[in-house]
Amino acid sequence: MAVYTHVPAEVMADFLAGYDVGTLVSAKGIAEGVENSNYLIETSGADGQGARFILTLYEKRVATGDLPFFMTLLDHLAARGLPVPPALPDRTGQVIRELMRRPACLIRFLPGISVTHPTAAQARAAGSAMGAMHRAVADFPLGRANNMGLDTWSDMLSRCGHAGMERIAPGLWGQMTALLRQVQAHWPHNLPKSVIHADLFPDNVLMLDDQVTGLIDFYFACTDIRVYDLAVMHSAWAFAPDGTPADPAIGQALIAGYETTHGLTKAERAALPLLAQGACIRFLLSRAYDWINTPADALVTRKDPLAYWHRLEWYCATGKAAFA
Amino acid sequence: MAVYTHVPAEVMADFLAGYDVGTLVSAKGIAEGVENSNYLIETSGADGQGARFILTLYEKRVATGDLPFFMTLLDHLAARGLPVPPALPDRTGQVIRELMRRPACLIRFLPGISVTHPTAAQARAAGSAMGAMHRAVADFPLGRANNMGLDTWSDMLSRCGHAGMERIAPGLWGQMTALLRQVQAHWPHNLPKSVIHADLFPDNVLMLDDQVTGLIDFYFACTDIRVYDLAVMHSAWAFAPDGTPADPAIGQALIAGYETTHGLTKAERAALPLLAQGACIRFLLSRAYDWINTPADALVTRKDPLAYWHRLEWYCATGKAAFA
Repeated sequence: MAVYTHVPAEVMADFLAGYDVGTLVSAKGIAEGVENSNYLIETSGADGQGARFILTLYEKRVATGDLPFFMTLLDHLAARGLPVPPALPDRTGQVIRELMRRPACLIRFLPGISVTHPTAAQARAAGSAMGAMHRAVADFPLGRANNMGLDTWSDMLSRCGHAGMERIAPGLWGQMTALLRQVQAHWPHNLPKSVIHADLFPDNVLMLDDQVTGLIDFYFACTDIRVYDLAVMHSAWAFAPDGTPADPAIGQALIAGYETTHGLTKAERAALPLLAQGACIRFLLSRAYDWINTPADALVTRKDPLAYWHRLEWYCATGKAAFA
Repeated sequence: MAVYTHVPAEVMADFLAGYDVGTLVSAKGIAEGVENSNYLIETSGADGQGARFILTLYEKRVATGDLPFFMTLLDHLAARGLPVPPALPDRTGQVIRELMRRPACLIRFLPGISVTHPTAAQARAAGSAMGAMHRAVADFPLGRANNMGLDTWSDMLSRCGHAGMERIAPGLWGQMTALLRQVQAHWPHNLPKSVIHADLFPDNVLMLDDQVTGLIDFYFACTDIRVYDLAVMHSAWAFAPDGTPADPAIGQALIAGYETTHGLTKAERAALPLLAQGACIRFLLSRAYDWINTPADALVTRKDPLAYWHRLEWYCATGKAAFA
């Protein structure tokens, strides 16, 4: 959520000369996405009509070795008509280049805004977009292990530590340990897997009114249980920011929207309550780790891990009724 | 250099409905300017052709009482054809409104990029733009005391403290105390005063090739010795980032450019070496204060105060020859 690498305008202009996009007209560092440096840039355009792009420099959080997977995925989805911004090849055909000693890509700008309090109509459209994405990846040939998946949660909890978890909320360590064991024991390993977005929060869906105009920030995309993607989405969309449930119509609309473009088997539907608990554990743990390891006075926003604790409690208490 | 206040898209759309600018199409938090929150936004435009703006929310650094001065100044300069972005009035004629409990303005977007290593031609154009700005403010009726001016430097040094200054560089406290006394003793109080930008660093000049397309970030503008503005600009443009002098042609081009649009009296020219020392003291002290009071691990860029110490030493050693 910051610009980590300052790119001098002259260096940026040189970099852009490698593409058929005209000359640099404007460049603003933007505060969004995971730990990358992003610039919203405008050029005169290949046709002189003006064009806009996001220039992304990949900082340490995104492994360089994963970039070909991400970029091929964006291309695949864009080619199938999904509102996903493809990265541009330069004049030599390269998509992943180097800028300021970091891997860098020039990505098409998409209009649309990220809603903070989605309506049911917006949730329906977003669920439908996820279903369409899952259809489109059915023939995608690449895969990537989920480095924030089930197998990693015990380790993440250990790295947060007993003292750290107790500082967030007394009793949290014991409760998380017990819940994690339970979720691991019942995890539905036999459900269909595919490439998933794994982080389709409202932040990562661009909309104009009730239309989805963009699905962005695929840097957690990986191979995992397909319907886990919908569980992650539910845990991110169906609650108010403080972790209390929003209007139940939101969660219902997400799933109804998904079903307009992708089927859900009985087994997938039955697994949603447990997968949603898993999604809460994953985001609670990554937020807890950041919370414990970020100085309180640092000028980055620490996301409250307890918001996910409240969601987790709600899923545990509500069970199947959460997805009725 | 961050987005301090997150504005939910729905709240932003409501705010924009107060203007005749069409509907919100895109909004990206941008990392620039003094301690304000800035969004680069796109709307469908009053005419449906699309329009772009900077939405600024004023955080604590800009005093609310100063906003009418700044906004009237932008308007005055834009009306005189300067490339200065005016703030838009809403449907009721208000320019300064409230958003997320902060004063907020919608400002026209200007194209152009900020150069990091200006060429002599670019320095000449920027100097000329400052001269044109000084002509344009000759009949500007408002004023504002310089709250970072000569009168404040002793206090700023005290607030940095002996220990803090010594931590930056051994001996710095004593050298700054002596230099400050000398600059205060010789300050040319009788030179013409006017409204000045007071912070016209390369960051705050937008350019396309060698043309100035924007003068921005007037939030230090104040009434002070007019040619002090040129001294500030010289101290910011004529050096390499590490504080060593850049090509002497840059400093010469700034002043030659200024003289294409605004005269310099003999007294003003003679005062430049001392005023440039004053400019170095001002930026050294504000950077030193931030340096001392910002945790080293905070994710904001601390600007190195020593870059200004090296410039100050250079001005002291070079004397009149710096402006020959």
